Amino acid sequence: MTATPAFNPPTRVLMGPGPSGANPRVLRAMTAPLLGHLDPEFLRIMDDCRDMLRQVLRTSNQVTLATPGTGTSGMEAAVMNLVAPGDRVVSGICGYFGERIAQMAERAGGVVTRVNAAWGSPVDPAAIEAAVKNAGGPVKLVSMVHAETSTGVQTPVEPISRIAHENGALLLVDCVTSLGGVPVEADAWGADAVYSGTQKCLSAPPGVAPITISPAGWDAVRAREVPSNTWYLDMQLLEAYWNDTRTYHHTAPISMVYALHEALALVLEEGLENRWARHERNGRALQVGLEAMGLVLHADAGYRLPVLTTVRIPEGVNDAEVRGALLKRHGIEVGGGLGDLRAKVWRIGLMGESSSPGNVLLCLSALGRILREQGFKADVRAAVSAAEGRLS
Amino acid sequence: MTATPAFNPPTRVLMGPGPSGANPRVLRAMTAPLLGHLDPEFLRIMDDCRDMLRQVLRTSNQVTLATPGTGTSGMEAAVMNLVAPGDRVVSGICGYFGERIAQMAERAGGVVTRVNAAWGSPVDPAAIEAAVKNAGGPVKLVSMVHAETSTGVQTPVEPISRIAHENGALLLVDCVTSLGGVPVEADAWGADAVYSGTQKCLSAPPGVAPITISPAGWDAVRAREVPSNTWYLDMQLLEAYWNDTRTYHHTAPISMVYALHEALALVLEEGLENRWARHERNGRALQVGLEAMGLVLHADAGYRLPVLTTVRIPEGVNDAEVRGALLKRHGIEVGGGLGDLRAKVWRIGLMGESSSPGNVLLCLSALGRILREQGFKADVRAAVSAAEGRLS
Repeated sequence: MTATPAFNPPTRVLMGPGPSGANPRVLRAMTAPLLGHLDPEFLRIMDDCRDMLRQVLRTSNQVTLATPGTGTSGMEAAVMNLVAPGDRVVSGICGYFGERIAQMAERAGGVVTRVNAAWGSPVDPAAIEAAVKNAGGPVKLVSMVHAETSTGVQTPVEPISRIAHENGALLLVDCVTSLGGVPVEADAWGADAVYSGTQKCLSAPPGVAPITISPAGWDAVRAREVPSNTWYLDMQLLEAYWNDTRTYHHTAPISMVYALHEALALVLEEGLENRWARHERNGRALQVGLEAMGLVLHADAGYRLPVLTTVRIPEGVNDAEVRGALLKRHGIEVGGGLGDLRAKVWRIGLMGESSSPGNVLLCLSALGRILREQGFKADVRAAVSAAEGRLS
Repeated sequence: MTATPAFNPPTRVLMGPGPSGANPRVLRAMTAPLLGHLDPEFLRIMDDCRDMLRQVLRTSNQVTLATPGTGTSGMEAAVMNLVAPGDRVVSGICGYFGERIAQMAERAGGVVTRVNAAWGSPVDPAAIEAAVKNAGGPVKLVSMVHAETSTGVQTPVEPISRIAHENGALLLVDCVTSLGGVPVEADAWGADAVYSGTQKCLSAPPGVAPITISPAGWDAVRAREVPSNTWYLDMQLLEAYWNDTRTYHHTAPISMVYALHEALALVLEEGLENRWARHERNGRALQVGLEAMGLVLHADAGYRLPVLTTVRIPEGVNDAEVRGALLKRHGIEVGGGLGDLRAKVWRIGLMGESSSPGNVLLCLSALGRILREQGFKADVRAAVSAAEGRLS
């Protein structure tokens, strides 16, 4: 008999790039008794999830399910199933995750043209168009990130969708950080593949990834001459498990599906439009507050996500010390910069359950005080006042 | 405001091929507050998991972690990272999962020789040896399934390990259904890759997959000239996240890692040897009971897993009706046959929390009574008496 040390993770205020805080109902759902993955009751829960996913993704696509892994598994499923060896791919990249898609497309055997934008700006549709026209042949897939988690930038989907479809290409849209927080309209956009994660604006723990594929996208998946690189995330095998065929593929992550079910129910209870409005209000309040404090927002005005704000670290201020103090004194997690933005910005998330007026004010007060200790003259009073004005 | 139907999955007695019942402590661990995936406290939990995984897998391999997906993700990680295009692979197959490994190895570009055994018998080491010698060149990898979930057969590892290593090949062993229930000795076997799931004898919900790679296996992974087929399950990227480098790769499935942590602690509290003995005792009691009832066990004597028993469906008995009655009347889930054994056998699991004397007796009584209704003269009294004799 070995003694086990106590397992008591501390409570945090999760205001980083994800995970966001989970609603207690979601955590409680995971304690429901396990069902077998082919139990009729569990299949009913999967069907319910499917219905709710369609509502939240705003799609009528048949192929709509949750891959058995984190958000990156959704990305891999979308890319590896749509890209076959030799396929031309044009990847819009304005941050870390756009580049990740391009790397996956290369592993899938795709011939990738990268269309880069500055980390802080959206992808330029004209540059996508030029790349598609000059790809040396028909382009199979255009990829883009709706909400770039590394920069806090939102790239409008419609212009790029139009270009893709006018040129006979499919459109893949990464919505990991947008789904449930800002409008995602899979069908209205004409997106052929959309995937997301659960630990951002859906506010469930990470572990499954919503994905939907349009009929045209599905035709392309089924027309492949060589099977997908991946067996685990082969969409044809996953769909045959999620649809009425119920062909065994993997043992569904039962408790994570419970969590997804409860999280989606919470989204629909709140109402998508209400939820978007809440994220918008809180996010803008934080942003005006940060500016009133004297800080500089990193993302281009007009393209700033309300759910994830990048703010520049003022000169002379120590990145690690500030984030360490936020965590140690207040239990607040904010994210550091990723890739090119390491030590240059903080990433402050207001996603799902974490998107609340209280968290806006808490973050401004705590951050402002710590910045003053670091010698930066943060105007905390102005920050709180500006935020309150935007919240009321 | 949409009303949400009540979410109350029924309680089951999980005696199928997995998931098994979870200990309440494991379910409760999942309700702990979420931590950020780079939070120092979460990194400590990952380190603890790593230490405990090494103890449970009986290995000192540095590369020991949990892939962010179900057991099949462990299989994909092992196969896709060890097999490069053109590599010769010899796959021992005596059931559904052995064949799945071969299919994955083919997707990875491997040239696979299948060594098939009857579904109910173990893989024959002599046949493996012949295949390795006649592969037309050096074999990179020999694959086998320690505990074949589709047939209830255990194939001894040592003879096949010896053959692999004498011929310069690496050895991959699927331990999805054995880990935590029957002895798994990664280092003593000389296995180069071992993976498992959490929802069998570890008794956690499905969602993460333990995996370990030997130093020789790791050298092979790092010596690849082309990257692994998969980005999501690229072991080099996963290891760089799990080791002190902490390079961001995916957002860890936080709550599932909590569950794994608690499940591993429970295994070590019980003690591996005690746990193996418990599974052995209960499994053999079920098996003598089934035989005393008048049923025929499917797997070859001497190679029967204690944790998963295949029993032949008697002639004239309706598979679906029996399993339906067990589920409806008693909440008992047993598994149907998979692949070639569909409608020919039932698969009765006694894994992890589900492996208890009470479940043995419950299953024999309930199954016996239902079989009698189906016209099969089950001797329930003899069954229970034989099982009790073995249990005491």
